[in-house]
Amino acid sequence: MIVVIKANANPEKQDQLINWLKAMGIGVHKSVGEYQTVLGLIGDTSKVDMDLIESLDIVESVKRVTETFKCCNRKFHPEDSVIRVGDVRIGGGHFAMIAGPCSVESEEQIVGIAKAVKASGAAMLRGGAFKPRTSPYDFQGLKGEGIELLKIARAETGLPIVTEIMNLKDLPLFDDIDVLQVGARNMQNFDLLRELGTLNKPILLKRGLANTLKELLMSAEYIMASGNEQVILCERGIRTYSDYLRNTLDLSAVPMLHELTHLPVIVDPSHATGIARIVPPMALAAAACGADGLIIEVHNDPLHALCDGAQSLTPDAFDTLAKRVLAVRAAAGCGTEG
Amino acid sequence: MIVVIKANANPEKQDQLINWLKAMGIGVHKSVGEYQTVLGLIGDTSKVDMDLIESLDIVESVKRVTETFKCCNRKFHPEDSVIRVGDVRIGGGHFAMIAGPCSVESEEQIVGIAKAVKASGAAMLRGGAFKPRTSPYDFQGLKGEGIELLKIARAETGLPIVTEIMNLKDLPLFDDIDVLQVGARNMQNFDLLRELGTLNKPILLKRGLANTLKELLMSAEYIMASGNEQVILCERGIRTYSDYLRNTLDLSAVPMLHELTHLPVIVDPSHATGIARIVPPMALAAAACGADGLIIEVHNDPLHALCDGAQSLTPDAFDTLAKRVLAVRAAAGCGTEG
Amino acid sequence: MIVVIKANANPEKQDQLINWLKAMGIGVHKSVGEYQTVLGLIGDTSKVDMDLIESLDIVESVKRVTETFKCCNRKFHPEDSVIRVGDVRIGGGHFAMIAGPCSVESEEQIVGIAKAVKASGAAMLRGGAFKPRTSPYDFQGLKGEGIELLKIARAETGLPIVTEIMNLKDLPLFDDIDVLQVGARNMQNFDLLRELGTLNKPILLKRGLANTLKELLMSAEYIMASGNEQVILCERGIRTYSDYLRNTLDLSAVPMLHELTHLPVIVDPSHATGIARIVPPMALAAAACGADGLIIEVHNDPLHALCDGAQSLTPDAFDTLAKRVLAVRAAAGCGTEG
Amino acid sequence: MIVVIKANANPEKQDQLINWLKAMGIGVHKSVGEYQTVLGLIGDTSKVDMDLIESLDIVESVKRVTETFKCCNRKFHPEDSVIRVGDVRIGGGHFAMIAGPCSVESEEQIVGIAKAVKASGAAMLRGGAFKPRTSPYDFQGLKGEGIELLKIARAETGLPIVTEIMNLKDLPLFDDIDVLQVGARNMQNFDLLRELGTLNKPILLKRGLANTLKELLMSAEYIMASGNEQVILCERGIRTYSDYLRNTLDLSAVPMLHELTHLPVIVDPSHATGIARIVPPMALAAAACGADGLIIEVHNDPLHALCDGAQSLTPDAFDTLAKRVLAVRAAAGCGTEG
Repeated sequence: MIVVIKANANPEKQDQLINWLKAMGIGVHKSVGEYQTVLGLIGDTSKVDMDLIESLDIVESVKRVTETFKCCNRKFHPEDSVIRVGDVRIGGGHFAMIAGPCSVESEEQIVGIAKAVKASGAAMLRGGAFKPRTSPYDFQGLKGEGIELLKIARAETGLPIVTEIMNLKDLPLFDDIDVLQVGARNMQNFDLLRELGTLNKPILLKRGLANTLKELLMSAEYIMASGNEQVILCERGIRTYSDYLRNTLDLSAVPMLHELTHLPVIVDPSHATGIARIVPPMALAAAACGADGLIIEVHNDPLHALCDGAQSLTPDAFDTLAKRVLAVRAAAGCGTEG
Repeated sequence: MIVVIKANANPEKQDQLINWLKAMGIGVHKSVGEYQTVLGLIGDTSKVDMDLIESLDIVESVKRVTETFKCCNRKFHPEDSVIRVGDVRIGGGHFAMIAGPCSVESEEQIVGIAKAVKASGAAMLRGGAFKPRTSPYDFQGLKGEGIELLKIARAETGLPIVTEIMNLKDLPLFDDIDVLQVGARNMQNFDLLRELGTLNKPILLKRGLANTLKELLMSAEYIMASGNEQVILCERGIRTYSDYLRNTLDLSAVPMLHELTHLPVIVDPSHATGIARIVPPMALAAAACGADGLIIEVHNDPLHALCDGAQSLTPDAFDTLAKRVLAVRAAAGCGTEG
Repeated sequence: MIVVIKANANPEKQDQLINWLKAMGIGVHKSVGEYQTVLGLIGDTSKVDMDLIESLDIVESVKRVTETFKCCNRKFHPEDSVIRVGDVRIGGGHFAMIAGPCSVESEEQIVGIAKAVKASGAAMLRGGAFKPRTSPYDFQGLKGEGIELLKIARAETGLPIVTEIMNLKDLPLFDDIDVLQVGARNMQNFDLLRELGTLNKPILLKRGLANTLKELLMSAEYIMASGNEQVILCERGIRTYSDYLRNTLDLSAVPMLHELTHLPVIVDPSHATGIARIVPPMALAAAACGADGLIIEVHNDPLHALCDGAQSLTPDAFDTLAKRVLAVRAAAGCGTEG
Repeated sequence: MIVVIKANANPEKQDQLINWLKAMGIGVHKSVGEYQTVLGLIGDTSKVDMDLIESLDIVESVKRVTETFKCCNRKFHPEDSVIRVGDVRIGGGHFAMIAGPCSVESEEQIVGIAKAVKASGAAMLRGGAFKPRTSPYDFQGLKGEGIELLKIARAETGLPIVTEIMNLKDLPLFDDIDVLQVGARNMQNFDLLRELGTLNKPILLKRGLANTLKELLMSAEYIMASGNEQVILCERGIRTYSDYLRNTLDLSAVPMLHELTHLPVIVDPSHATGIARIVPPMALAAAACGADGLIIEVHNDPLHALCDGAQSLTPDAFDTLAKRVLAVRAAAGCGTEG
């Protein structure tokens, strides 16, 4: 249920209403926008008397919400959420490019790439330390050592770092990481999501390989219902019967999610396509349809990358792309901040 | 098999080679580009002596082609095909917007929309006269009468017309139509494709609901192998497990098809998404990733359209979109002709 | 809308009711079962006064039907339809095996296989004369000559013949064919369906590669709404992301369709799997879940078949399978007729 | 790489060979069958001299294996694995039915159902204590308390218990559980799999919602490569575009997996279909195509179940089904043990 508060309503009366609702065991999610304040009511609202609330002088309107997702629902929070990572902002007109290698391989590699992508305009550095691999016999990442190398690259460049967490027991290693990524295979690892909901740092939540938009939102809800509202959604391609490309990048998810939720939505064209040549056009397309950011694999030596080299751009190709992305965003009227 | 002819090779010697190949029962597809001429050899090339041909002084190189599609293969025809419809050109840097209602409903409706979309920059008019409908009880189009109304709209505006053919027996009605559309459900109606291959007019071939890119190319091949090389491919969304949108628009098909084939590729964001609000961002995304055109549903009164109103833009919304599409194309570096 | 007539209702009064409904422009579909008679009302039933009809003494009850499929809806026709092909019956407890080669290749081949499968218990002979092929360069069937060879095999064995029609213009060639098959790629070739609806012979309608059950039923509806109620549905595998098998055989479609429609449902395990070794277990599974028949590819020389040899059983393997299928049906309690 | 040892080869010489291989850093997986012994070599076998090994007198043949899955590969282990759970055996001709409620709700409920399904022939009891739910607001299971209730039901009936583990930190609670289930959403939770690989108890591994057979085998490989070879695979339906049923039960996975791996394969028709009426035909179909077992939801009061009641059978319906399943297995020639 949603209660829209009148502009200029007495703050004391608002608090009284909120306290009264909480006393009935209703969770209240308050969203203060520029033009109106919205109270999202979570829990068993069947006993709440809508007519009574609507009759209060501070209340403009009351609506039932049928969707099962609440915290991430745009109806509860009409204005875009802006997620902050140090000085970087994502969402609400702010656009951020995240770039870096699939896997962290060495200090030289990660620092070199970090400097290059920063010079091209990347706002954050990505790099896998823990790698989920289909086969137990494939390279699984440098793990703790990789985390340390990412921190060195951050120290050298000032770029915040984004890296994937696969398992709760590794959480202590991520203490000093700026953004924790949940990979596609873990999108419905509900215990992991719940635990990440107790942290106070942004979570980059990737859509699962065959999950619907509603399921993605419900997984964001797991994090947010535990208290952490800093969630960035990421479309990374879904499994279909594609023949030449690894997955099918579902860009229509971007405007559709923007309608359903206030959370920022970024796009990963590298994993979706699996082919470096196809990454730039899909990155431009993502920018054109309103994505709030991109996460792109860049490797200084794609031919010899330990993982997913075929989908990595060279630093030069990324530089060309980054400029074009901003031009496309401007032409598409997607806002100029960022 | 592909034979690349040297620049400035003696034309007479080229003809001798072609005639010698034809005498062996090999089909020869000649593509004259700006910098080189390519002969595509179709049929049982196992008996052709590659070394002998490579030793000819007019020949630069000979390559085996393993793909089963030949006529539409970019290897056979390295330069983009440009399809002409009256003064309109699509492909090879030329971009065209096709707009109009899902169904032709009346003279007033189709002429009114035609004038509006022309004023906004549309290069062609679309409108369904024969409508494939899942249910036999739904409106099936005005049929022959719809075709006549389209011609009136063309006479009034000069816009070439694009409309769908469902059945060979209706072919006489389409004599004076500029571009014949094959719908998604007929993409593998091979007899229809073969017959359209005997015409001398452009065919707009839509990708089937669950067809791979290779299957789309093989269907183009049916048309081209029958002699008609004027094929425009169209991505229109594929069936997945999407929850809020009708289908999943597979924009990565655009750059991937551009790599595989020389044929132009356009995008239909209206049928793919089924929601008018989502059409503009997906149209911009299509332009950004290099589509050679768009086909968009526009209706003067979407609420009362006889078919698919929910996905139609108003003429005003189309006008705003059309300008933005061109700006995005320019920003993405997709060429400025059109 | 459905009107259930009381048992032993006066036939004259029934006719009066039917005529009165028809006079209002309502189509009436009468289904006389053992225990009750059901009138299915098709068309714009909004003007029909349900209360008035319910008050008639011959009427037991009146119900609105919300599904858009009518003629094939089990609510309109609670008892199983039994389709007759000569002496063969399918549906309503009658089970039929249809067997034969993918393509008709020669008189010797088709007559030899026909004799073998008859001896093993097949009730009908299948064989492709017109073959839909993804590539225009692949073998397209013997066409008219193949039809003639099928008739010879029928003359030699007495087995009714089933073969695919791809195009209305070929219809005269199929005059003497017992069952016309509509292939997966033509499931939504609505003009073809409508025309087959004017014939008086059974149509075997295969589910399209990515079509839902509702779409399959709506396609059956196209045939039935044109007057031909002799439709046999066929599940033949759907397109997913399967890695080792060609398609995914959706056997749950069998009991689900049985709930939704009175039409018989058969299964094609050969095309679904594409691997001969996997055909027998899937044929047994189809029998166990209540399929009304099977259509199975059998070839005397699978290694050298012109088409789809890898999925064909040898006559010996079919013989073993056929016996086991009947045993499984009996064990599963699926009825013993056939 | 696979080394097939001759029948009656000197055991001492076999050990010498194995030790020599291990000294080169090669993992050796020995499978002793009735007729032959197979050594599966895991790791970097590029340096192993195939010719040298083939020349040994105890060696019959040496083959390269290109599949990336090794431990679960039938080529490494030609005979069926039989998994033992107390007195129950699954695989290699032994068939087991696992039945019980979706969620454990109370002692009365779980003991009552356990007694009923045991009387009908179930070999094990299933019941969810930890429930993965798409929404954080839905019932998540009784957790530790549910585990205790399952143990009570086991004490009362003697049925071994199967229940899902979602998180490594819960592992101590599962100490006394007979079979640990990994749910579809966790099929690629690789850290969980690896840890379960260190246990000495059977793991029931469900196929993920959109995972291929190869991915399922690679996940089994994670468990087995860590030392635990007691893996039971489970097909439970995949995500497609199905309209009336929750998922598409992919029964062709059963014979295909039997070809690829020696591990037993069971089927869960309850979650796949989501409709109790469709469960019995699909259970019979699974038995007919060679499944080694079934896992079926049974609830004494499906209308009031806390979770997934719509797909649960009543104890009576399960009783009827259980008898029929055995009859179908016998008719299909699937072995009579169990």
